[in-house]
Amino acid sequence: MNIKNLNDLKKFTDEIRSQAGYKDPIAFAIGRSIKGKSAKTISVNYAVVNMNENYGSAAVLSWAIEKNGIKIDNSGSEFVAPINSAITADALNVFDFLLDECEGDKHKNVQNLLVVDEILNDGEMENDVEFVVTFLYSDDAPKSVEAVYLKLYLLSLNKAEIRSLNLNGAFGLLPNLAWDSDGNPHELDNLRENEIWLKMKGWYPNIVSVDKFPRYLNHIIPSDNTRILDSAKVRMGAVLAPGTTVMPGASYINFNSGTTGSVMVEGRISSSVSVGDGSDVGGGASILGVLSGTNGNPISVGKRCLLGANSVTGVPLGDDCIIDAGIAILEGTKIYISDKEALEKVNPGFKFDKEIYKALELANLNGIHYRQNSQTGQITASISKRAIKLNADLH
Amino acid sequence: MNIKNLNDLKKFTDEIRSQAGYKDPIAFAIGRSIKGKSAKTISVNYAVVNMNENYGSAAVLSWAIEKNGIKIDNSGSEFVAPINSAITADALNVFDFLLDECEGDKHKNVQNLLVVDEILNDGEMENDVEFVVTFLYSDDAPKSVEAVYLKLYLLSLNKAEIRSLNLNGAFGLLPNLAWDSDGNPHELDNLRENEIWLKMKGWYPNIVSVDKFPRYLNHIIPSDNTRILDSAKVRMGAVLAPGTTVMPGASYINFNSGTTGSVMVEGRISSSVSVGDGSDVGGGASILGVLSGTNGNPISVGKRCLLGANSVTGVPLGDDCIIDAGIAILEGTKIYISDKEALEKVNPGFKFDKEIYKALELANLNGIHYRQNSQTGQITASISKRAIKLNADLH
Amino acid sequence: MNIKNLNDLKKFTDEIRSQAGYKDPIAFAIGRSIKGKSAKTISVNYAVVNMNENYGSAAVLSWAIEKNGIKIDNSGSEFVAPINSAITADALNVFDFLLDECEGDKHKNVQNLLVVDEILNDGEMENDVEFVVTFLYSDDAPKSVEAVYLKLYLLSLNKAEIRSLNLNGAFGLLPNLAWDSDGNPHELDNLRENEIWLKMKGWYPNIVSVDKFPRYLNHIIPSDNTRILDSAKVRMGAVLAPGTTVMPGASYINFNSGTTGSVMVEGRISSSVSVGDGSDVGGGASILGVLSGTNGNPISVGKRCLLGANSVTGVPLGDDCIIDAGIAILEGTKIYISDKEALEKVNPGFKFDKEIYKALELANLNGIHYRQNSQTGQITASISKRAIKLNADLH
Repeated sequence: MNIKNLNDLKKFTDEIRSQAGYKDPIAFAIGRSIKGKSAKTISVNYAVVNMNENYGSAAVLSWAIEKNGIKIDNSGSEFVAPINSAITADALNVFDFLLDECEGDKHKNVQNLLVVDEILNDGEMENDVEFVVTFLYSDDAPKSVEAVYLKLYLLSLNKAEIRSLNLNGAFGLLPNLAWDSDGNPHELDNLRENEIWLKMKGWYPNIVSVDKFPRYLNHIIPSDNTRILDSAKVRMGAVLAPGTTVMPGASYINFNSGTTGSVMVEGRISSSVSVGDGSDVGGGASILGVLSGTNGNPISVGKRCLLGANSVTGVPLGDDCIIDAGIAILEGTKIYISDKEALEKVNPGFKFDKEIYKALELANLNGIHYRQNSQTGQITASISKRAIKLNADLH
Repeated sequence: MNIKNLNDLKKFTDEIRSQAGYKDPIAFAIGRSIKGKSAKTISVNYAVVNMNENYGSAAVLSWAIEKNGIKIDNSGSEFVAPINSAITADALNVFDFLLDECEGDKHKNVQNLLVVDEILNDGEMENDVEFVVTFLYSDDAPKSVEAVYLKLYLLSLNKAEIRSLNLNGAFGLLPNLAWDSDGNPHELDNLRENEIWLKMKGWYPNIVSVDKFPRYLNHIIPSDNTRILDSAKVRMGAVLAPGTTVMPGASYINFNSGTTGSVMVEGRISSSVSVGDGSDVGGGASILGVLSGTNGNPISVGKRCLLGANSVTGVPLGDDCIIDAGIAILEGTKIYISDKEALEKVNPGFKFDKEIYKALELANLNGIHYRQNSQTGQITASISKRAIKLNADLH
Repeated sequence: MNIKNLNDLKKFTDEIRSQAGYKDPIAFAIGRSIKGKSAKTISVNYAVVNMNENYGSAAVLSWAIEKNGIKIDNSGSEFVAPINSAITADALNVFDFLLDECEGDKHKNVQNLLVVDEILNDGEMENDVEFVVTFLYSDDAPKSVEAVYLKLYLLSLNKAEIRSLNLNGAFGLLPNLAWDSDGNPHELDNLRENEIWLKMKGWYPNIVSVDKFPRYLNHIIPSDNTRILDSAKVRMGAVLAPGTTVMPGASYINFNSGTTGSVMVEGRISSSVSVGDGSDVGGGASILGVLSGTNGNPISVGKRCLLGANSVTGVPLGDDCIIDAGIAILEGTKIYISDKEALEKVNPGFKFDKEIYKALELANLNGIHYRQNSQTGQITASISKRAIKLNADLH
């Protein structure tokens, strides 16, 4: 091999990619898999994750893996290949001319290879660790822990949009684990077997959660203007746009849900929910999710909405909506329309032809202010007159 | 001594148990007590906890303790005996023929003795640690930290039902401690005395809670299908039936309260509250407890109930009840009955003879759907038509 | 120098303090500053914090600092001086006659100097640590991370009242940091640069929060009868009077807000909110704050108030008020007055001259019980007949 520059590299990878049977992965990453007692992967760490990009690096990795005797099966939607020091050596050989400039944001996949190569060669690998490359060839239901983690990374790294990936069966694939305060997973059976010894020695780990999913902050470095005051509040696989603040009171963001802009989150963003830029999810506000709550219709909340403290949102909202503190707007909630003309003006195409609507009929309309008359108990939809603006200091 | 098999052992322990003055304990466990500055026990770890079982092991332990000069006083409700290597040696001598098969779930108390014996003999005991055996002879108000912890274990290990144990005075017995991220307790005074040194060295421990109670997950390994996404949410002494999921938003389960079947917990289960199989405690839902909230009547919620997001439940519910999101049903809340006949059908024996009831009068009835008319503000009780089914993936 | 007793010391410090240009600081403390990559301070630990006290110690520190070539500029509102072993030696020389009695609560500033001196002399300082003295000369907007932290300490140590300090611009001064489970701060950029290595080695830190503010329990040792069940729930800069209990469900106490007596906190105490002795902030109750929520009017809740579960409080309350579970009392909420005479009796000076008030007009009145008629939806203000008493066991 004689690859001296990017041109040579491109020729080399183009050749691989044009071979019969080769497929560019839609996503791939080098991972550190942690194995359980039965040698099954229980969790994975990725550092550099690629989606519809860096096809050349994927080609080199594939080539090096096959060169070392592992047949990559790309007939299915995914393939997980273990990597050893022979594979990293072969791949790094290809990238040799690049190694000097591998720092900062440059050639991240090669940096990753270099680190793995060093660790594989220093002889200090833990028994329960294996390095792998995970390739996704299509977005089918995941079939491995590695693929589930890769998809969770794609979401949480803002490389895939909320609800855009197939995560069917993820719950079944992920084992339920005890996570300790150092971020390490423990199989429950393993704890049981060693309980007496660990407890009597004072070595029982401080378990901070028992869940199939790790926490977002165990894997993701948020952007500089994102704040998450309690790591327990955001599950891995959540999507947080820069400028999102998650307060520690009653908030929560599940996987495959989150924000698409600066949002103040003091309430619950359930699975599949999406909240738009400039919105404020007030303290204890609940937005119902598809896993339990709504009838399976995922809820989007538009831009510049205010969900008041302890309100409940069970229908999708357009932009500039307000739900007053303490009231619940569910699919079947009957709403009296009090500002027909003004509401029609901000919702061209929508004609109010009756006095009372079910909230679901008002789904996605803009500028609605839901309130409850405190003297009659009547819930009404009027035009929102208050521009919601987040405190710039906080986002 | 010449104990060669289970028969010999039974003879040996029967003899001990038949002696005048001997009492079988209702519960016992070998514990690792952590001592504070005044040499008082501040917390205890148990690994193997017995309730109305393994009387033979208790007899051998009692015998070995008394053989080594400690008189066990079983005239009261509890006794805590320190154990040393002479005691463990004597007890293990009795179990000698069993030692080869001490693994897995077999002979857990003997396994516990073996571990303690090894630790006591390796000469590396911390100064602030003491091994003990805690015997409970009756369920009176606890008198020691060891007894409180043993009762909390009995609850959290599902060996005793919610509200079935006498925990009077537990708050007074337990010291208020600072718990660090490794799960270790610190006396507040001790932190104060060392504050300057610890802070200037950068060694100040990361305190994750200050409470009299530890957290459930510091002591209990949940069943495989139980999930607790934030250890802060479940106090030691809580009861979680297998299949319970505790989400991290606004949920909480206090000691002496919890679930009796698969339950989705996204709200607050206050002290003495019990929630039945298949129920869903929605995001931010509050079930009032006896410590502060109700007039002292503990609340049970039946099976397959749905407590909507941000609802408040102040009365006991039967099976198949729904409280809609955002509404509060307290003891004195006036409820208009809208489906008398249907409700009577599922509550044989209950006759509705007026239009409006206080919610407490409807306590424990089945099949009620509490809702608020969004046009009139009226809170009504109708028949619940929606079968509540938890998402099988999640439990 | 020949300082042999307190008299000599007083003479010495009086002389310093009477020099032209010298100013007593309103607050000062010796701190351990942690530096980021750009050598800027990112966080500070203080152990002994002085406010309007110990002017003599401040004078000795100032003298020793200037003796070693650092000019203290007290023309502004604050000054942060680095200290080295020459400075600590000079200062300790002055206190030499006192050193024998430096223990327990005696001469805390000198104890702090002794510890810093020892650390500076043992040659084991981390590169990213610097010892400083932070002087505040007036309560202007803070200009340094050290000054912000000092003010947060003044609040959280109960040396300054809620809303009494100028914290303008604090958000801008504090960097957004990732805090790990040992309580250590990480710059996000630093994590990014080392992500590959840390993750592939399994050394990625367990990040428990990403915020500009640390947590209260990372810095403050609460009083013996204070309980905080989840450290995530209380931000540094919060004010907790002894006897406060913070439960882990949906609660939260922001900086510059908190309690002025024994309070049960199961809800949200937003920024600038103050809650009085004997009050009970129920599960999920929200008290709106000035950062987002109210129109900028900070809310005080009086003594012996009960904010019911999932209630929302948007106006200041006097003493002995109740807001029933699940209802929201906002500034514009219309309230029907149902017990005029009784309410006037407990609010001398207030005359009810109409049937319906906006809640803001009722701000700070005593003895109001806000409730919603469950048959008509009407929200009313009646006289509170129930004395709120916290459970003595719990505070």
